Amino acid sequence: MTQPNREEANKAAFERLCTSDPVVKDVVPAIDVLPGMTRETILTSGPPMAWSDYTGGQRDAILGGALFEGLAANREEAEHKLATEEIQVDGCHDYGAVGSLAGIYTASMPVFVVENTTYSNIGYCNIYEGTNPRRLNYGVYDEGVHERLLFIQNAVAPVIGEAIRASGGIALKPIMRRALHMGDELHSRNTAASMLFAHELFPHFLELAASKRQAVKSALQAMTEDHYFFLRLSMAAAKSMADAAHGIEGSSMVSAMAFNCRNFAIRVSGLGKQWFTGPHATVQAKLFEGHSEDEITWMGGESIIAETVGLGGFAQAAAFPLQQYQGGSPEAMVDRNRELYDITVGENSDFHIPFLSYRGTPTGIDIFRVIETGILPAMNIGIAGRDGGQIGAGVVRAPLACFEAAKETYDAKYG
Amino acid sequence: MTQPNREEANKAAFERLCTSDPVVKDVVPAIDVLPGMTRETILTSGPPMAWSDYTGGQRDAILGGALFEGLAANREEAEHKLATEEIQVDGCHDYGAVGSLAGIYTASMPVFVVENTTYSNIGYCNIYEGTNPRRLNYGVYDEGVHERLLFIQNAVAPVIGEAIRASGGIALKPIMRRALHMGDELHSRNTAASMLFAHELFPHFLELAASKRQAVKSALQAMTEDHYFFLRLSMAAAKSMADAAHGIEGSSMVSAMAFNCRNFAIRVSGLGKQWFTGPHATVQAKLFEGHSEDEITWMGGESIIAETVGLGGFAQAAAFPLQQYQGGSPEAMVDRNRELYDITVGENSDFHIPFLSYRGTPTGIDIFRVIETGILPAMNIGIAGRDGGQIGAGVVRAPLACFEAAKETYDAKYG
Repeated sequence: MTQPNREEANKAAFERLCTSDPVVKDVVPAIDVLPGMTRETILTSGPPMAWSDYTGGQRDAILGGALFEGLAANREEAEHKLATEEIQVDGCHDYGAVGSLAGIYTASMPVFVVENTTYSNIGYCNIYEGTNPRRLNYGVYDEGVHERLLFIQNAVAPVIGEAIRASGGIALKPIMRRALHMGDELHSRNTAASMLFAHELFPHFLELAASKRQAVKSALQAMTEDHYFFLRLSMAAAKSMADAAHGIEGSSMVSAMAFNCRNFAIRVSGLGKQWFTGPHATVQAKLFEGHSEDEITWMGGESIIAETVGLGGFAQAAAFPLQQYQGGSPEAMVDRNRELYDITVGENSDFHIPFLSYRGTPTGIDIFRVIETGILPAMNIGIAGRDGGQIGAGVVRAPLACFEAAKETYDAKYG
Repeated sequence: MTQPNREEANKAAFERLCTSDPVVKDVVPAIDVLPGMTRETILTSGPPMAWSDYTGGQRDAILGGALFEGLAANREEAEHKLATEEIQVDGCHDYGAVGSLAGIYTASMPVFVVENTTYSNIGYCNIYEGTNPRRLNYGVYDEGVHERLLFIQNAVAPVIGEAIRASGGIALKPIMRRALHMGDELHSRNTAASMLFAHELFPHFLELAASKRQAVKSALQAMTEDHYFFLRLSMAAAKSMADAAHGIEGSSMVSAMAFNCRNFAIRVSGLGKQWFTGPHATVQAKLFEGHSEDEITWMGGESIIAETVGLGGFAQAAAFPLQQYQGGSPEAMVDRNRELYDITVGENSDFHIPFLSYRGTPTGIDIFRVIETGILPAMNIGIAGRDGGQIGAGVVRAPLACFEAAKETYDAKYG
């Protein structure tokens, strides 16, 4: 296959990314909707590995998931059942889902159902756990985490689900587009989007308030108590967009990026389900008070689906307030954002950056351009500590190795 | 009085501006709260003038106010009663209020009551009329305007008032501070602030929904259908802050700025109630489709109380999305914003600009610095057309003449 065909294929993949139209339709337990999900399956972030390969916080998170789901009475039993594959671990991406940090999904966990109405595929994401830095997706499982997960499952999710169903579905792209004009980049900052989403639900909350006012208040609080509630909707939307752009013969455009505890990895639209891996890179971090760099650990992460579709690090010049959260200067954010146009297929038709005179965000990473320019995708991420919990945030670059590995396969396949 | 004393006085005035804490406490008819208001009084923007001096849209707006309030059966009768002073015209500022554009207040109109809890003074502002460009404050009075004003008065204001009273008062500074991190400058853009304010009311709306769901829905829609609802709260808050900084002996800091149809004018903290006037300046405008520069007309405006307290044009680098509404480039907005630090007393302790690495906004215009540097205050304003209604938005500079006139009086008074 020749060079022009690759360009055509990338253009087609980019078009599918940009013309996708994610609409959240429901909130239901994972077991009811994730294709292939079983009661004994635990999904986690990154390319799936044998149980014995999971270490640290990601291993703790998987064990926590098994206990939360009641698949084992204690940690030892959970370890045993995982080792004997009575409990199976698998990767979120192959179930249409994306995981935040460790990204644990168990059967009973409620997930947002986001339909890409242009292409009829569906993306899923479970629900933000809340403001406590000790959360299951940061490798922590204790009584507090357990109770919070049950609260999400029994109090928050049903009310939000009922309101979403009453709405007939809420289009997420208009919210995402507006949020980029209000200081969000939809990965590490979702302040405006969370409010905009709550606004869409509010008329339906008013209807529900007659019969369940306290439940509505709880749900509303969970949705707006801080900046992150919308992230999971942004992730599910991005997954539905990226999946629509996957599988274009000849395309060298990245269609997924993910961390697990050992590797960083990408998938490429024209290269099937194979993950191309590379090492973890150094993160430019701003840590919370009382934490130090030596605590930084990797326990997975798939929220970088945002960057895959032209958000997050690829829209950072829309989100100057992020400097307070993840460090850096506005000038550095602008420079970093501008540079990414050199490695992307096009400029997003819906996501615009006010500071760049409403230029569309750089969208659709081309593995060839990454290798040619040496410019690595920049991603805005939360940072986990080795004792579990979030200890900060920062910017990380994807490793060159995974792009080189992908190019090798691409060259072998397409000549 | 010597130079150091002026600096001390300005520092004191600036301190009062920054330590003010505006809290909205109620929504009630103007007649019930504006000090000195009567049934036959119509307030309008800018230094008050004799009735015969009002021309164009501002004159039309005053006549519209008289008809809306039922003070006359028709336009001729209203003209007559205004000429004979059976109906009195006066300036908003002397009643603790600020007017948007023509800025008409009549007795029955609901106003926000915003208490500066630090200094116990109160600022007032009436309520945003809605998205129709034909509005009373843009010099239009017809059946549609009449009905909209009654809808605000009878449907929107009572519900919002009830929710505010139930809340015990809503602090506006935290909303304003956050909105500056979300793309607002709180004069020509109030998108985030309007949402944040609605969020504060949500829990109380849920309580009210049991007995009056439709009224709550109407109020919510009026609050969020576009970007401007919060502007009137921002104005009342700014007025309460500016008034607290007024009357500091020896201060050369501007404590009010206002347009009427003939002049631009300022008041100075240390120079009492006198208005110092200058001519209208040319506006750098972006007009709505189908309008041209020759239609631009002046019919008053006191929303520039925002710029008086370090918002609006003085915070424009917080609001890059404004370029779509009022024109200009992000670079020009940053340059213009940076320049204003040369004419202000200090940097705001609460209002920060993310793009300028969270530097406080330039706050407290010093008439001496304006004259020394020749840098004129930049203001973000809505633009009225000669046939009434809004025809665009833009940036305007205050005229040097009013600062020179104020300096002359300052020199005469303080030597």
